[in-house]
Amino acid sequence: MPLIVDIHTHVYPPAYMQMLRARKTVPYVHDPSNNADPRLIILSSDDDPSIPPDQRGRPVDSSYWDISVKLAFMRQHGINISVISLANPWLDFIEPGEAQIWAERINDDLEATCAKVNKDADPENTRPIDQKETLFAMGALPLSAPDPAVVVNEIKRLKTLPNLRGVIMGTSGLGKGLDDAALDPVWGALQETDTLLFLHPHYGLPDEAFGGPDATSRYGHVLPLALGFPLETTIAVTRMLLSGVFDRFPGLKILLAHSGGTLPFLAGRIESCILHERKFVAAGGDVQGPRRSVWDVLKTNIYLDAVVYGKPGLEAALAASGSDRLLFGTDHPFFPPLDGKDGDWPSVTTNYKAINATFESSSDTVADVLGGNAARILNLK
Amino acid sequence: MPLIVDIHTHVYPPAYMQMLRARKTVPYVHDPSNNADPRLIILSSDDDPSIPPDQRGRPVDSSYWDISVKLAFMRQHGINISVISLANPWLDFIEPGEAQIWAERINDDLEATCAKVNKDADPENTRPIDQKETLFAMGALPLSAPDPAVVVNEIKRLKTLPNLRGVIMGTSGLGKGLDDAALDPVWGALQETDTLLFLHPHYGLPDEAFGGPDATSRYGHVLPLALGFPLETTIAVTRMLLSGVFDRFPGLKILLAHSGGTLPFLAGRIESCILHERKFVAAGGDVQGPRRSVWDVLKTNIYLDAVVYGKPGLEAALAASGSDRLLFGTDHPFFPPLDGKDGDWPSVTTNYKAINATFESSSDTVADVLGGNAARILNLK
Repeated sequence: MPLIVDIHTHVYPPAYMQMLRARKTVPYVHDPSNNADPRLIILSSDDDPSIPPDQRGRPVDSSYWDISVKLAFMRQHGINISVISLANPWLDFIEPGEAQIWAERINDDLEATCAKVNKDADPENTRPIDQKETLFAMGALPLSAPDPAVVVNEIKRLKTLPNLRGVIMGTSGLGKGLDDAALDPVWGALQETDTLLFLHPHYGLPDEAFGGPDATSRYGHVLPLALGFPLETTIAVTRMLLSGVFDRFPGLKILLAHSGGTLPFLAGRIESCILHERKFVAAGGDVQGPRRSVWDVLKTNIYLDAVVYGKPGLEAALAASGSDRLLFGTDHPFFPPLDGKDGDWPSVTTNYKAINATFESSSDTVADVLGGNAARILNLK
Repeated sequence: MPLIVDIHTHVYPPAYMQMLRARKTVPYVHDPSNNADPRLIILSSDDDPSIPPDQRGRPVDSSYWDISVKLAFMRQHGINISVISLANPWLDFIEPGEAQIWAERINDDLEATCAKVNKDADPENTRPIDQKETLFAMGALPLSAPDPAVVVNEIKRLKTLPNLRGVIMGTSGLGKGLDDAALDPVWGALQETDTLLFLHPHYGLPDEAFGGPDATSRYGHVLPLALGFPLETTIAVTRMLLSGVFDRFPGLKILLAHSGGTLPFLAGRIESCILHERKFVAAGGDVQGPRRSVWDVLKTNIYLDAVVYGKPGLEAALAASGSDRLLFGTDHPFFPPLDGKDGDWPSVTTNYKAINATFESSSDTVADVLGGNAARILNLK
């Protein structure tokens, strides 16, 4: 059996849940009066006063904060290593003066959780890696801090924590998106420390994109989650490209959630629109186009998770970035089965099946995507 | 040489240009005082009072309305047959009382143009199809008419025009999107008459999706065109799916612009989100999920143009719908070369190259995608 590494798996550590419980505005956690699972109100659209607080938002059961549930999930699905990351919206909303302390607290908590789990599973560190569950973590960043230097310092500090591998970030950056030049020190620190950035959506698209709030909610969360999330990621990385981030920081390593949102599929159209944009081509314009092509960035800077639930997405990811840049993930604990049974999660088995179907001609490639690539890229051992 | 059919190629017929010249609100045409090409102000964001009218919007040269320029373009790029369609925003903005008359006028104009070109090229209809330029057309629909019956009648009337093949439509439908139940008579008429619907974007996404108007315009039209357009198409067809249009009209045939926007890539995520949506799964909910899967619809109802500018997009389209449902197109006269020279258009040659690279192992498949599929599906001869 190949080593299986899950690089897209989230937690809300207890300290984070406690902080959300103390809040009264989005995002916040509400404990229902009937001892049911706490409710997480994460989106403005979920904070609907016409809905009783006990039913508002979504239930977050122990799979979100109890690491033993994560370990059981790993065991059930044959996952050897999980690289856990704080779930959205991370620390985007924290008061500036508290950003640093919360980032340090959360990241230390993640480090301690990994260290304890790994020690408990194998006190002498003598068991083979494929015969136990091992945890690593991606750190959260204090992006709302008053000075990007705070972010830079935390990126550097994370390199001193033995179980931390990379950082996770949303698309708002310092609040103005990822094409904000004020982020340059952050890109510089990530490049200098050779830290993988996991770029993940949270904000989606405005309801108007889906026909307004009524049209959006008519189908539950399908439109925002299935289409809004991937487009948010695509827009964010395209703005980085257009503003020249990859020209200025050619050593950046970015793992894009959900196989790049839609980046592999739209890469050709993005490149064509750049080459046909008068603002970029006309001499003397105050904005110049990016120097590096989308194709070059996809094969040099971008890694893609394999969380795309089908062969078409994987074929596009393969053609755009290559099988050596594609990494298995689950998005656990999101998308649990709704049948109330204890079977394997279809959201996981669908991705296993898609990987096997796409790379059926090479078991080595399947093994690379399932874990070999992640182990190599993140130095997991 | 295989037969080459361009199924994605637009015109603004003279009558349509004249109508736009008479308008003072978007969309409208303004003739600059210096005898330069007319300016088309098609988007609200282009109607910027701070920009002189002579520079507002974009220039629309003779390639948009002079059919001899289209024929020269076909000759230059080896295209044997073009299936021309009215460019966006079609008749979406027409006063209700004038919708029927404008639809009939435009469609009769398209029929007359095709008939004249085809007669001039081959008066006795004796030359082989691959040794002349032949035109067919897709009709426009009077969607703003006071009664959908007007649309239904025009769909039926189009079947009597010898050079009309299918219809083109945007994503607003009767004004409320394509999941509006009031469109059912239209879907019924398309199914009953076995008419191909070419679904094409125009409205894009709200500027807020890209970080607001300043962030959007910073990169010219790249973000709205490269990302907004494809997402608009994806959202529109997903709303059709979620509302059960394909369950109620299983015989619909829809050609999606730009290889489906992003539908092939996101199909797996859409299907997963549907299967994990409590609103669909929970018993007694007032909305039920669609009965047919995305995968079934992609292989039964959907056709995809091959206007995606790269192998990754084509690989996804192939895996989602199959090479027998993929059709070459150019998007002419949009995306002209900006170098001022008379060479082949990179926006066309990029798609030729991508098709050849994706299907290099089978010249038959290349021929199917370049023209065989279109000739079969649209009965072009």
